[in-house]
Amino acid sequence: MATDISASGPRSNSSVTIASIAAETGVSVPTVSKVLNGRSDVAAETRAKIEEALERHQYRRRNRGPATSGPSLIDLAFHELDSAWSIEIIRGVEVAAAEAEVSVVLSELGGRHRPEQKWLDAVLARRPMGVLLVLSTLGKSQRHQLESRSIPYVVLDTDGEPPEDVPAVGSNNWNGGLSATRHLLGLGHQRIAVISGPPDVLCSRARVDGFRSALDEAGLHVDPAFVRYGDFYVAGGYEHGKDLLSRPDRPTAIFAGSDMQALGVLRAARELGLDVPRDLSVVGYDNLSFSGWVGPALTTVNQPLQAMAATATNLLIDLARGNSPQLRRVDLATELIVRESTAPPPS
Amino acid sequence: MATDISASGPRSNSSVTIASIAAETGVSVPTVSKVLNGRSDVAAETRAKIEEALERHQYRRRNRGPATSGPSLIDLAFHELDSAWSIEIIRGVEVAAAEAEVSVVLSELGGRHRPEQKWLDAVLARRPMGVLLVLSTLGKSQRHQLESRSIPYVVLDTDGEPPEDVPAVGSNNWNGGLSATRHLLGLGHQRIAVISGPPDVLCSRARVDGFRSALDEAGLHVDPAFVRYGDFYVAGGYEHGKDLLSRPDRPTAIFAGSDMQALGVLRAARELGLDVPRDLSVVGYDNLSFSGWVGPALTTVNQPLQAMAATATNLLIDLARGNSPQLRRVDLATELIVRESTAPPPS
Repeated sequence: MATDISASGPRSNSSVTIASIAAETGVSVPTVSKVLNGRSDVAAETRAKIEEALERHQYRRRNRGPATSGPSLIDLAFHELDSAWSIEIIRGVEVAAAEAEVSVVLSELGGRHRPEQKWLDAVLARRPMGVLLVLSTLGKSQRHQLESRSIPYVVLDTDGEPPEDVPAVGSNNWNGGLSATRHLLGLGHQRIAVISGPPDVLCSRARVDGFRSALDEAGLHVDPAFVRYGDFYVAGGYEHGKDLLSRPDRPTAIFAGSDMQALGVLRAARELGLDVPRDLSVVGYDNLSFSGWVGPALTTVNQPLQAMAATATNLLIDLARGNSPQLRRVDLATELIVRESTAPPPS
Repeated sequence: MATDISASGPRSNSSVTIASIAAETGVSVPTVSKVLNGRSDVAAETRAKIEEALERHQYRRRNRGPATSGPSLIDLAFHELDSAWSIEIIRGVEVAAAEAEVSVVLSELGGRHRPEQKWLDAVLARRPMGVLLVLSTLGKSQRHQLESRSIPYVVLDTDGEPPEDVPAVGSNNWNGGLSATRHLLGLGHQRIAVISGPPDVLCSRARVDGFRSALDEAGLHVDPAFVRYGDFYVAGGYEHGKDLLSRPDRPTAIFAGSDMQALGVLRAARELGLDVPRDLSVVGYDNLSFSGWVGPALTTVNQPLQAMAATATNLLIDLARGNSPQLRRVDLATELIVRESTAPPPS
């Protein structure tokens, strides 16, 4: 699969020019230029016709390098800005961007995993060096709109499966689920529940699969009632935690899928008069900054969010500067951090 | 550039033009334009000479409204991006900016409360509609560099005392300190300590003054050993908390100055075997998203960070669009939220 997005890339047709697109669609050359530059003063119908022709011919603007009129920008877009998780990523991007003397435009996509066209129009108009999407992916025609302007993009912590040729940085979620569950098994737990994130987010499924593999390894049966999908937020952990811990056969350990959900499980346990870790062990995920400070301090899986963000930013800047990075799909390693919230099960 | 040459604004000298600055400093008109546009291709010495003349004559570029070549940007700069506090502000700015169809460039100033010139140069070069500074202020000559380009700026949650004519949005810190302390006095506490933020940050001092006023009101003496200045982070609360709670005359209540510091105090109490709220009451500040979920849920002072950020953004956009907002200095109200971490003192 071809992965080059420059003008001479193998998938592009080098005989296609702005003039040939203009001739074919019956508009002037400046009109095609306006569309490529994200200008809003072109009628919607004309614009759609031009975009269609650009995509059909796989047009690629030759990368002109950074504009001279101002400093370089990259776009960073989150599907949703939530508390401690987003700020780790923002910090990683800011540090890497500052080192490269690049500024960062931050957007929130209102909870959508696929950006609205309105957002993409604003991106095209400001002509960033590149676009970094967190937990979001672009539709095929949106991808092409960036490609035809030679604006590279990178996906961070993939949500769903980005096409093979999309550069992406993630972490080893399956391994994270495996090591969290092995730790609990090693302490002697047998009734272990998992609360993962939403089932339509790939990393949630990978963590649950790691959980299953660890139980398999130990010759234990997976009780379907003990496999839950939350929302990665405190409320999801609290509600599933309350439900799981109110059962007569309640689990002695919960792998909470995120540190926020672990906070919710801790709260549910407190309300039910269960002591952590004496009556219940809890493992979080992410290793957010508060996880070592809450009571009890969370045993958790370190997801190196700042390093992932910096890696993605450097990859994006490399692509934008016309370098050919050796690695275009990277998963950073996760690591179990043992603190106070896990112990052997009550005897 | 031909239309840029007049100056405006009540303090400006309307006879000063780019041409007169060029003549006086012995450079060409395009060189003065380059400096105004943040271009880097002017020798440092020439540039300093031109900036000096611009400042001395109080030159003001006529505000030309948003550039037509791209969508409008505002700059949002934090002295430091910390965990949950910053994200509340970022969300408030993003929502208000998106409504106004303005994009946000986010920068971190590496812990400095006064930005480096390098950052300001990048701002001048990208010509934003305006600049929003969080816990930071500009030096006099930096202020003038923005003013001479007609780029307005607003300060959020003032750190130090911005000059009277600088638009600013904050919250009523003194009142927050007062209501937190009154609440503890009302429960019957008499040995109350405060851990505020750094003493050189104005809001820290205002909160301590509110604390003192509440004790005064109750006819209680302020023990200087019970007035501490931390760093607003968990570590500051933990260290001062540990020290205060190890004293023979330990306090029965601590006003922790920030929710992060309250987390640190909770941890110190746990380590010393003290139960919150039975043995010790703790009040936080900020009402960050986790504060209702930790154990015990924090009694805290709600600082409406998202609303403050949105108010500051709207004020900035108003100024940039040439409107004359009625209020240029606003403090939003703080409010005590009572949860589980406060109770009457041990008898």
